[in-house]
Amino acid sequence: CLPSGVVHVSMSTISPPLALRLAHAHQAAGQGFVSAPVFGRPDVAEAGRLWVVVAGQPGDVEKCRPVVEALSAGYTVVGEQPFLANIVKLAGNFALASAIETLAEAFALVRKSGVHEAAFLEVIAKGVPWSRVYEGYGAAIAAERFEPAGFSLALGLKDMRLALQVADAAAVPMPLLSVIRDQLLQAWAQGEGERDWSVLGAIAAKRAGIGGRE
Amino acid sequence: CLPSGVVHVSMSTISPPLALRLAHAHQAAGQGFVSAPVFGRPDVAEAGRLWVVVAGQPGDVEKCRPVVEALSAGYTVVGEQPFLANIVKLAGNFALASAIETLAEAFALVRKSGVHEAAFLEVIAKGVPWSRVYEGYGAAIAAERFEPAGFSLALGLKDMRLALQVADAAAVPMPLLSVIRDQLLQAWAQGEGERDWSVLGAIAAKRAGIGGRE
Repeated sequence: CLPSGVVHVSMSTISPPLALRLAHAHQAAGQGFVSAPVFGRPDVAEAGRLWVVVAGQPGDVEKCRPVVEALSAGYTVVGEQPFLANIVKLAGNFALASAIETLAEAFALVRKSGVHEAAFLEVIAKGVPWSRVYEGYGAAIAAERFEPAGFSLALGLKDMRLALQVADAAAVPMPLLSVIRDQLLQAWAQGEGERDWSVLGAIAAKRAGIGGRE
Repeated sequence: CLPSGVVHVSMSTISPPLALRLAHAHQAAGQGFVSAPVFGRPDVAEAGRLWVVVAGQPGDVEKCRPVVEALSAGYTVVGEQPFLANIVKLAGNFALASAIETLAEAFALVRKSGVHEAAFLEVIAKGVPWSRVYEGYGAAIAAERFEPAGFSLALGLKDMRLALQVADAAAVPMPLLSVIRDQLLQAWAQGEGERDWSVLGAIAAKRAGIGGRE
């Protein structure tokens, strides 16, 4: 049993409800609880270059800051309730899984169409500045800034329709692509065709019943 | 009308069937046709830093190489039939649309759960080395190299189930996440749970009726 006054720092990807229970249990025992899940594989951890997502009461977070800093390239405090860090970690892992399934479908499409996988790998690895893509579109969605359009949603919808035609002709099921076409179609139907295709961010928020940030 | 012997270089994102028709028409007229769609927005183009996806007959490609090199940071030749470049461009735009819809759903989830969008933006922009993610998982899928597992599919499935529970509790529809869970579940049901979660690449290929590369 931990003595009172200590802070338990949990760096695992546990469920938000479990983090909530742990926070309550530690509070009842006069202890602190900080959720601090990490991004980075074991080799990144060994090099002390993890990114840590931290949530907890400010005093508790302050106490464990030296440990977090020693392990990481940097960290982000996402809230005062520990479970919020676990939600952010799950959202990040969703983004990673999404990138993998996207690559899975894209490679199946181009391979079956006759493109050598090494050629497509070069395009996908060197042709698109992915970090700037996530940062740029992330910033646009965070700020709900969809004008002027760098690439209009109507053009994006056109391209996804063409991609689906190719997939259909080559008999390559692409479940992610089908869903994305539907999201673009919904945004287009709701009058968002001329805004930047990152307006999908506003559509997802609207679906969830949350309006603009204003 | 173009004289015979010239090469028409098309850099637009046109449909593969249109590229096929153009290739035939130019061939009938004794002319060359090269598809060379680009990745990069107007500011990237102005800086001469586009990435060009090139396909065409080797002699035709050779003729237009000086133009492509002047415009770009680099280029990849993906095949001898021009329409293959258009398929690769559509696959790349699918990957971009997928990144946007992923961010859209992830921001809706964390915002509605009580995380400030600026905090999540920092995690997503700085916490994950996206270019290495696409290059690394792309290479694994291209080579069908899913062992040893850096992160097992079973663990990925666990996390996506947790994310769906959070989304359900917060009433945030996440259509992409639902599809991704199903793909992971399919892979797990087919006995791939202990391999790396990039084994989704093998599942997508199997769905399309293309087996291993061997």
